[in-house]
Amino acid sequence: MKREISDWFLDLQDDICSNLEVADNGGSFVEDKWERPGGGGGKTRIFKNGNIIERGGVNYSAVFGDVPDFLKKQFPGEKATTFYATGVSIVMHPKSPEIPIIHMNIRYFELGKIAWFGGGIDLTPHYVNQHDAVYFHSELKKMCDKHDQSFYPKFKTEADNYFFIKHRNETRGIGGIFFDHFRANENHSLTDIFSFVKSTGSLFAPLYVSLINLNKSTVYSENEKKWQLLRRGRYVEFNLVYDRGTKFGLDTNGRTESILMSLPPIASWEYDYQPEPGSREAETISFLKKDIDWLK
Amino acid sequence: MKREISDWFLDLQDDICSNLEVADNGGSFVEDKWERPGGGGGKTRIFKNGNIIERGGVNYSAVFGDVPDFLKKQFPGEKATTFYATGVSIVMHPKSPEIPIIHMNIRYFELGKIAWFGGGIDLTPHYVNQHDAVYFHSELKKMCDKHDQSFYPKFKTEADNYFFIKHRNETRGIGGIFFDHFRANENHSLTDIFSFVKSTGSLFAPLYVSLINLNKSTVYSENEKKWQLLRRGRYVEFNLVYDRGTKFGLDTNGRTESILMSLPPIASWEYDYQPEPGSREAETISFLKKDIDWLK
Repeated sequence: MKREISDWFLDLQDDICSNLEVADNGGSFVEDKWERPGGGGGKTRIFKNGNIIERGGVNYSAVFGDVPDFLKKQFPGEKATTFYATGVSIVMHPKSPEIPIIHMNIRYFELGKIAWFGGGIDLTPHYVNQHDAVYFHSELKKMCDKHDQSFYPKFKTEADNYFFIKHRNETRGIGGIFFDHFRANENHSLTDIFSFVKSTGSLFAPLYVSLINLNKSTVYSENEKKWQLLRRGRYVEFNLVYDRGTKFGLDTNGRTESILMSLPPIASWEYDYQPEPGSREAETISFLKKDIDWLK
Repeated sequence: MKREISDWFLDLQDDICSNLEVADNGGSFVEDKWERPGGGGGKTRIFKNGNIIERGGVNYSAVFGDVPDFLKKQFPGEKATTFYATGVSIVMHPKSPEIPIIHMNIRYFELGKIAWFGGGIDLTPHYVNQHDAVYFHSELKKMCDKHDQSFYPKFKTEADNYFFIKHRNETRGIGGIFFDHFRANENHSLTDIFSFVKSTGSLFAPLYVSLINLNKSTVYSENEKKWQLLRRGRYVEFNLVYDRGTKFGLDTNGRTESILMSLPPIASWEYDYQPEPGSREAETISFLKKDIDWLK
C-alpha cells in the first residue's frame, strides 16, 4: 500500500504545482531532487518569479530507514527496526497582504505493522476577512462530511489547539483541519483514511486558487505591507518554536532547506506593537483565538 | 548580597544606555517598566530613532517567587520553595551590515542556599573581519586574565559550543565568552565571581562603542544589506530554536516583548542561498565554525 500512497502524493505534487503556476500566471516551480543519507529522498519545488506568490514550496518526500528516537519513544513496545514515511507539505507566502498564507501537510507513516496518516490544511490571513473564513471552513466541512460527519468538528478543534502561539496567546491564523496518528479503527479502514487524505490533498489547489482570485485585485498600501511583515514574524515564531514537523526535521538531521522553506522571504518584528483600536489590524487580532465557529 | 548585585545591574543598565546614546549620536532609549505577576519585575529599554543602531534593547530584571519547574528538575534534592533571579541582557542590531550584532547577558540566581552567576558576551558580525575578531577576543581575554587565566579558554569554548546553529552546522557568529552555573568553589568565592561578572558587564560598552567607531564609516551597498537580512534570519533561527534564555522565558510565561526584543527589526530567508566562491560572504561562512583560535 505504501507504494500506492507515495505515488499518489507524487502525482498530487505535480497537480498542485501546475494549478498554482496557472493561477500565478507568471512564476514557476524549480525542482531540487535530494537523497536522504539514511534512505529515501524527495523533491523540493520552490516557486520563483511569481506575480502573486512571493515565496512558496511544495515538498514531496518518501524516506525510510532506522527508526528515529522520537518514534521509539512514542511506541515503546514496538520491536520494528525500520520506518517508512511519505508526504507532501506546502506553504505559500503571497506578495499581497490581502491574500492569505496557506499551509497543507499530508503524510503517511509505517512502523512495523502500525500505519497511520496525519495532516491538515490551515489558513493564515494577514487580515482576517469573515467572508473568506466562512468560505474556507465551509469547503473543509463539505469535504470532511463526505467521509464522516465527526471529522470536521474534531479536526477543526485539533487545528485550533495545534496552530496556537502560546507566548502570544494568539492562534497562528483562522485554523482549518488537523489530524495526526489516524490509524485504522472499527469505523475506518486504512483505505477509508487514505480516501479522506486524498480528498484533503485534492481540495488544496481549488481552495487556494479561489482565495487568490477573490483577493488578488484588492489594492493595498505600505501600511498593509508593514502589517504583513509583522504577521509573517509571528509565522516564523510558530514554525521555529512550536511546529512539530519543523522540530522533528531539525532534530533528526533532516534537509534543512526543505524544512525551512516554510519561512517567509522577509519578516519583521516591532517591540510591543499595538494596532489602533477599531483598525483592520485590531479586528484581525480579535479573530486570532480558538473555538470560533465560522459556520454557525 | 542579592540586593547589592541587583543594584549594580541597575546602575550598569543606566551606564550602558548612556554610552550607547552618545555613540549613536541621534537615538535614545525608551523605558518600559513592568511587573511580574509572580513577584518582581523589570525595566526594558528599547532604542528608538537611531543613526547607527536600528533596533536594540537593554533589559534589566529582578524577579522572585515560587521555584519554576525547570529549576526543580535541575536541583532535584533542593527543598527551597522560592527563587531569586536578577540580570541584564542586551542585543543590538545595527543599521550597517559592516557593524556587528552584539549580545550580552549577565545574571545571578539564588535557590535556597545555592547561588550562582551566568552570562557572557558574544559577537555576530554580518561580515567577519579578522581585525575586529582579534580585537574583540583579545579584549575579552585581557579582562578574563585579570581574574583567572583559565577563564578565557574555558569560557571561549563554552561560547563556541553554545552559540551553535546545529541544523546549519554554523556558529551564530565569532563567539566570545559564555559561562553558566558558576558557583563559589575552592578557588573563587561568590564575591570573586561577582567581581568577574562586573568586569564583564563593564567591558560591554567600551568594547561595542569601539566596534561601532571602527566600522561606522564603511560604505556599503544593497548587496551587503541583502546579506545582512539573511544573517539576521540565522540570528532568529538561533534565538527561537536553541537559546535557553528565550526558551525558558517563553516556557515560563515570561514577558514576551522583553524576551523577543532580541529579534531583529527585519530579517529574510532565501531557499538554499549559496554565496559566490571567493566572495566576502563565502569568507564569512568559512569563519562560522567552532574552535578558531583568534589570538594565536
